[in-house]
Amino acid sequence: MAINAETFFLDDRAGGTLQHRIKRFVVDGVLSGRFQPGERMPSSRALANRLGVSRITVTLAYTDLVADDYLTSRGRSGYFVSDTAPAAPSFPMEDLRDTTEIDWSRFLAHRPEPPDAVTRPSDWQSYPFPFIYGQADPTLFDSQNWRLCALQALGQKDFDALTSDQYERDDPLLVDFIRRHILPRRGIKAAPEEILITMGAQNALWLAAQLLLTQRRTAVVENPGYPGLRDILAQTRCHTAHVDVDAEGLNPDRLPETLDVLFATVSHQCPTNATMPVERRRALLERAARDGFLIVEDDYEFELTFERSPSPSLKSMDDAGAVIHVGSFSKSLFPGLRLGYLVAARPFVAEARRLRGTVLRHPPGLVQRTAANFLSLGHYDAQINRMRGAFQRRRKLMQTAIAEHGLMPAGDMTSGGSCFWMCAPDHVDTADLARRLYARGVVIEPGAAFFQDPAQGRPFYRLAYSSIASARIPKGIEIIADTIRQLD
Amino acid sequence: MAINAETFFLDDRAGGTLQHRIKRFVVDGVLSGRFQPGERMPSSRALANRLGVSRITVTLAYTDLVADDYLTSRGRSGYFVSDTAPAAPSFPMEDLRDTTEIDWSRFLAHRPEPPDAVTRPSDWQSYPFPFIYGQADPTLFDSQNWRLCALQALGQKDFDALTSDQYERDDPLLVDFIRRHILPRRGIKAAPEEILITMGAQNALWLAAQLLLTQRRTAVVENPGYPGLRDILAQTRCHTAHVDVDAEGLNPDRLPETLDVLFATVSHQCPTNATMPVERRRALLERAARDGFLIVEDDYEFELTFERSPSPSLKSMDDAGAVIHVGSFSKSLFPGLRLGYLVAARPFVAEARRLRGTVLRHPPGLVQRTAANFLSLGHYDAQINRMRGAFQRRRKLMQTAIAEHGLMPAGDMTSGGSCFWMCAPDHVDTADLARRLYARGVVIEPGAAFFQDPAQGRPFYRLAYSSIASARIPKGIEIIADTIRQLD
Repeated sequence: MAINAETFFLDDRAGGTLQHRIKRFVVDGVLSGRFQPGERMPSSRALANRLGVSRITVTLAYTDLVADDYLTSRGRSGYFVSDTAPAAPSFPMEDLRDTTEIDWSRFLAHRPEPPDAVTRPSDWQSYPFPFIYGQADPTLFDSQNWRLCALQALGQKDFDALTSDQYERDDPLLVDFIRRHILPRRGIKAAPEEILITMGAQNALWLAAQLLLTQRRTAVVENPGYPGLRDILAQTRCHTAHVDVDAEGLNPDRLPETLDVLFATVSHQCPTNATMPVERRRALLERAARDGFLIVEDDYEFELTFERSPSPSLKSMDDAGAVIHVGSFSKSLFPGLRLGYLVAARPFVAEARRLRGTVLRHPPGLVQRTAANFLSLGHYDAQINRMRGAFQRRRKLMQTAIAEHGLMPAGDMTSGGSCFWMCAPDHVDTADLARRLYARGVVIEPGAAFFQDPAQGRPFYRLAYSSIASARIPKGIEIIADTIRQLD
Repeated sequence: MAINAETFFLDDRAGGTLQHRIKRFVVDGVLSGRFQPGERMPSSRALANRLGVSRITVTLAYTDLVADDYLTSRGRSGYFVSDTAPAAPSFPMEDLRDTTEIDWSRFLAHRPEPPDAVTRPSDWQSYPFPFIYGQADPTLFDSQNWRLCALQALGQKDFDALTSDQYERDDPLLVDFIRRHILPRRGIKAAPEEILITMGAQNALWLAAQLLLTQRRTAVVENPGYPGLRDILAQTRCHTAHVDVDAEGLNPDRLPETLDVLFATVSHQCPTNATMPVERRRALLERAARDGFLIVEDDYEFELTFERSPSPSLKSMDDAGAVIHVGSFSKSLFPGLRLGYLVAARPFVAEARRLRGTVLRHPPGLVQRTAANFLSLGHYDAQINRMRGAFQRRRKLMQTAIAEHGLMPAGDMTSGGSCFWMCAPDHVDTADLARRLYARGVVIEPGAAFFQDPAQGRPFYRLAYSSIASARIPKGIEIIADTIRQLD
């Protein structure tokens, strides 16, 4: 494309003739990679106007640059960056600015240290055996209908409304669908004012933590639990207590005496997949009422239940309004969409809306409307059914291969979802195992990141089947078993 | 659409026969607005399976509901919600949950009070004379090409990559375009690692404030200044000092002795439109170096300069790396897009990326890629030119009408932008004026929200021409003048 004359600013401080300064600007543009081979330079007239110099000055600078092979002249078409121009170094701007004058540690010093993240190669798509969790599987997503829904949202009728700044409001069509068709599946009845659209579940959990926690408050999280929560809680600088989960998830009897907010994955514990029985749920809500704490329920993956009906959410049993329910479209649609929601009492939703407004105003209108169209045309149900079918097949293959190769499950294998929680022999450090497996094209998630004390997670790992093709599963499991054997 | 059997949960606690509980669930669904007239009920077989009851139980419940006109039977097509079913009340779920058991003031008490927001009717599009600021004008936006670019991003080739969870990364195509084609217009050279994509400028300002400010630090803001900043700063609980601006924007000599972060609108002061002269900019950067503070430059609307070339940004003069530059596509594309960026030194961008990751991961991939396509195909330049042309025409009409009706400008009328900063006679309270004008179909923005002390803003108001058709301008200004006269 053409280089716009408006991008030209001559540096008054550098000295030299105007012609030299123009030359220097072009050379710098080429060497820094801003101007790329084949791009057309501004006409001498346009650049002369822009810079307030004579055309001849520009032409002389250009002629010089042709002589140095920065530019080529194509007669009446004008001047272009030469295809053989001196090349930009690979990190082009690296040396152009010196920012060492600022003591950034002074300004950024109060930030908490980054906790260990789950190790995941960012190019996981190029691995033949990606047992990676939480990513989209393009072979299962109905991108054809998504495209049609996006086009509908882009149509003139909707477009005008959706391109406006919505201040703090959400798309009423999306809220309505969630209220009438998604929440009822979780046993939840909610008014529109009790629902807030968020940038994925991550954003919903973050909003809840920000509103409810301070340095003087205590949060309780599950151990092992969702690693993303740690960063979120660290930002609030609250006290955090970890409660070990068992085969029935969190045990209300093990909660500390005083707490303000409990973060729980009730229907489907992350990462063990345990489902909390109804009696424990009742006990949990009674404790919350008695001791005056709130519960943030991360209701992820409820759609992916196979062998039995999904149990209703904790929120559906919450007569007191103490539960903040968090849902997401990252699994059922795709994670790059960044759409989720929270459902809670009005005073909380009003504050969360205000905070979201300050942080980012609102999730993009076109994204909300595209999702609303997709959902309301029934593609969501079809999508869930397709995913359930595929995941169930993959799950069977996983179970067979896991049994055949003698790998050890560490969590519930009956409650659905998109992954298994596994345990390696005692002498195996799964961080080390994961590194060895990457080299053999297999992606697994080591367990350390899920535990309060990373050492506790040493033998554990997570094996997801949401992004791996069925045909690859037996071989992938075989490689894992083989690699573990080599560590004997 | 059809009502899914999975949305049925019978309340075990409520008692009654199964048939009665099914009936009650349907009645509740209709009265609460979750089930709408014409929607098809699950088949008796599907619902019986779902609930683990016999088909006859479901059929008997349905038959009863037909008798009560909640449902109608259409023979073999099944049962539907009756078109004449008892109507849902207008706020349907209002009484279904009692959340008064939670003392929300205890949990939310530490939140700062909401500051006054600019009063803007949310249905401004239905006003004939919307002198409203910061909204899209659909007549100027090239929605046709935007649609094509969205389709391209939705194509199978891009789609697979864009639907994944990008963890903390941005779309490299968008970053590259900003780096090579947008920042150079502001005189800024930056490496990709010095750029972060944000959810609009709002999100960029929020990230900067969160990273740099604490209870023990001092922020300086312009008075009058951007109202959105107040909420952002309130969240950090920092000390805030207000510095009055004059016809040349912020005066560096008036800065307090100690400060940590200055928020400034340098090229185009918000709301007065003043452009800071180069000498003041130099002085500002020298003060920053000497006193060790950082400057967050909100470079909004730089594209909309008419009568002279845009002055380079403060960031372009920043050799020390003390400036955090914030830009936005809200004006040049549309605000509902929620896309902006920040440019700063690497250590800052790395921390901002991490914080953004915790809050929301990343702006949606499809939105980033659509914008990247639109920009790189040259539509952005065409768009800017079209907006400049239209705004310049509107601006002339505004100036003529303002002069003709004797309205008083209070700010710079030469530096472009999309609005004028105006002053009413002393006895007029523009909040009152705005209310009267709403009743006559005219939207203006009263000045109070822009000032530290709202009383200072009493006579001021902002008149934008970014969303009003040229033909409406003379009449709109006439109504404003007439309404002011009535207040004499």
